[in-house]
Amino acid sequence: MTQLQLDDTHDPSATSWVESANGADTDFPLANLPFGIFRHDVEERPRIGIAIGDHVLDCLAATRAGFFGDVDPAVRDALQSWTLNPLMALGRADARAVRRVAHRLLSAGTAEGSRARSLSADLLASNTAIGMRVPAEIGDYSDFYASVNHATNVGSMFRPHHPLLPNYKWMPIGYHGRASSIVASGTPVRRPRGQSVASPDGPPSVGPSARMDYELEVGAFVARGNRRGDVIPLSVAEDHLFGLCLVNDWSARDLQQWEYQPLGPFLSKSFATTVSPWVVTLDALEPFRTPAFVRPPGDPAPLPYLDDATDRARGGFGITLEVWLRTAAMRAAGQPAERLSRGDFGSMYWTLAQMLTHHASAGCNLQSGDLIASGTVSGPDRGSRGCLLELAWRGQSPVTLSTGESRVFLHDGDEITLRGWCEREGFRRIGFGDCSGEVLPALA
Amino acid sequence: MTQLQLDDTHDPSATSWVESANGADTDFPLANLPFGIFRHDVEERPRIGIAIGDHVLDCLAATRAGFFGDVDPAVRDALQSWTLNPLMALGRADARAVRRVAHRLLSAGTAEGSRARSLSADLLASNTAIGMRVPAEIGDYSDFYASVNHATNVGSMFRPHHPLLPNYKWMPIGYHGRASSIVASGTPVRRPRGQSVASPDGPPSVGPSARMDYELEVGAFVARGNRRGDVIPLSVAEDHLFGLCLVNDWSARDLQQWEYQPLGPFLSKSFATTVSPWVVTLDALEPFRTPAFVRPPGDPAPLPYLDDATDRARGGFGITLEVWLRTAAMRAAGQPAERLSRGDFGSMYWTLAQMLTHHASAGCNLQSGDLIASGTVSGPDRGSRGCLLELAWRGQSPVTLSTGESRVFLHDGDEITLRGWCEREGFRRIGFGDCSGEVLPALA
Repeated sequence: MTQLQLDDTHDPSATSWVESANGADTDFPLANLPFGIFRHDVEERPRIGIAIGDHVLDCLAATRAGFFGDVDPAVRDALQSWTLNPLMALGRADARAVRRVAHRLLSAGTAEGSRARSLSADLLASNTAIGMRVPAEIGDYSDFYASVNHATNVGSMFRPHHPLLPNYKWMPIGYHGRASSIVASGTPVRRPRGQSVASPDGPPSVGPSARMDYELEVGAFVARGNRRGDVIPLSVAEDHLFGLCLVNDWSARDLQQWEYQPLGPFLSKSFATTVSPWVVTLDALEPFRTPAFVRPPGDPAPLPYLDDATDRARGGFGITLEVWLRTAAMRAAGQPAERLSRGDFGSMYWTLAQMLTHHASAGCNLQSGDLIASGTVSGPDRGSRGCLLELAWRGQSPVTLSTGESRVFLHDGDEITLRGWCEREGFRRIGFGDCSGEVLPALA
Repeated sequence: MTQLQLDDTHDPSATSWVESANGADTDFPLANLPFGIFRHDVEERPRIGIAIGDHVLDCLAATRAGFFGDVDPAVRDALQSWTLNPLMALGRADARAVRRVAHRLLSAGTAEGSRARSLSADLLASNTAIGMRVPAEIGDYSDFYASVNHATNVGSMFRPHHPLLPNYKWMPIGYHGRASSIVASGTPVRRPRGQSVASPDGPPSVGPSARMDYELEVGAFVARGNRRGDVIPLSVAEDHLFGLCLVNDWSARDLQQWEYQPLGPFLSKSFATTVSPWVVTLDALEPFRTPAFVRPPGDPAPLPYLDDATDRARGGFGITLEVWLRTAAMRAAGQPAERLSRGDFGSMYWTLAQMLTHHASAGCNLQSGDLIASGTVSGPDRGSRGCLLELAWRGQSPVTLSTGESRVFLHDGDEITLRGWCEREGFRRIGFGDCSGEVLPALA
């Protein structure tokens, strides 16, 4: 593996004075320090926070207390915003500087740590006492289709004779999603109503979607953007990526099947998209770099503008991804959620850098805070399929639950939680936090 | 025809003290009064303006001079913004109140008009001395496909055996566009580079698009929005539409053909979309209401949520739409632009109200300032086809120009101008102003 770009923040022996950050299974140890937007109560202006154990470092309070005195004034201004966009716009180097200051501030045994600890009543909020918001003002949301397993599975259901279209291995296929309906984890999602058909040519009937599904995805927030008409060479693509989150791209499969030709999914996806509220920086993910997906013999080599040959050894991120379901019956019985699948982000055919470079390649301007999602992450085996459409194979293989219930698509009251984390020998485990949403009944 | 909702602002005998507004062929007589965003110079904050003849009424200056003293304070605040979103969010009734005040203020022979005329040095800017901007902060841009002639023409080129897909007559087909690359009229548009194929299965090559095209569309800005999960009944849909503009949905046909399956157009459209800078309100368009498109016998009746039977007599807008081309050779010879087509917005299969209601029907939240475009407006005959793909029938019937040049797709240096206007006996002609853009050569 190519040399990792590590620094003190990746030191697994460092401990925090915030005790909950030192446990083996927290998503937010001192080695993570993801950014998010929170507020103490609805009356208050949203603020930038950094997750640490089961607490949140209040960046506004920390800035006012002088902890960011050594960073550039523009960075201090950005830290006092009510959204992450200004910090994202400054670029990755400045975000790295902030993360390093936060690391010292939250460490046990440093001068900054001692001082911060004495001010902890002002600087820390409890993760359970606050409301998390979508971490950026998302101007545009683009969704890709980068798992070859997902594309092949879904394609074989709808187009059995040519499941994978001829363009798939030449470009990261993507489309424009809906930005307005992106919500933060914990927001309930109402089952949509719409047109669906019993036979392919119609006629349609209108009613609540009978095939509501989740999609397990990884999202990336754009850091610095590009001007309209300019491109982003692959060699610098990651400089334009601020960090990652989890994305549930809720889908109404029956609406989708009827509406999606010839212009793509529209209402079947635009009723809601849930994001996990913490943005895990690429710096925190550095120890978990993996080689990019190895193309099978016979697949075409990437075209020059997408050719990452010099960087394939570190093109991917080794993120374990899980989907958990808690039904209304499980809640009533006091039972915990049950795992539906476990996959790995390393199985994607295209890297996030390739998606970003392709996106800008015809001159489309990406802006700070834009969200790019990977598409459903599905591995090669059944247990790693990232949506119910695939898991239950279009209804043919129902998923049986420990309660005796079964699922082919989602029921009202079902709560879906996506989880993701990274583990590697010699490093602290880091995670993304939950990406959850409960299905509400359709409007009458 | 159903009774029109007319008031003093539609009186064709009213004249303005701004002389240029009284000419027979201005787009901006006293009966129009469209809203836009302008600035005197790049140093200055953008302001809301109202077009009048070849001048612009500065709404910030007019508000400070006390002309809007009788409107709600929230409206006065909105008029002092640097974007139209706050005014759009207040809803159509408040915009109507502003338009009525502006009408009195710009009329000859009123007390307000006399006072305004005496302050004209402060209140008016010359249309040629200012820079027009995109009129709203567009959160999301959605593009429909509502011309059955366009859908049939394009479908017959790409799917000769089933040009019109089974869903077409059941729902307004639409997709999510790219908001970041929407630009105001006059902004040059660089020819995109990207993947295209010589045979349907590839392999692709990368280079400047060889099939760059325009698309003639009408856009609608959303006034009040809806909450996520709620719907917008058709009976109130027009209350959510602030006004209309012209849209050129530039398209790279070769990129589009290779990339668009299965998720729809992406890079082939997202490099630029040009809008005309003046938003013509639905109030100004009231005299030009027309019956909605009459479905041929055998077509299905609209489903109940899209059934506008009670309002079909006034469901459409009679807007004449033209496309003009000025090539580099025409410019060099001092020749004016040449008209490529003339069509009518009344030919659309779905109304803007139906598009909006469908868009929100599964719970997607529309927001003030969102842009909804109609899709290419093509009539039934060749002279009314709204893009070169159709006009030159995929390259088979080149368009011959007076210079001896011909076109199947756009050349570098071609300037495309969309124009639109409404005329009716007994009313003043009103227009949209130009929607222009020149094609720049691709990056090397």
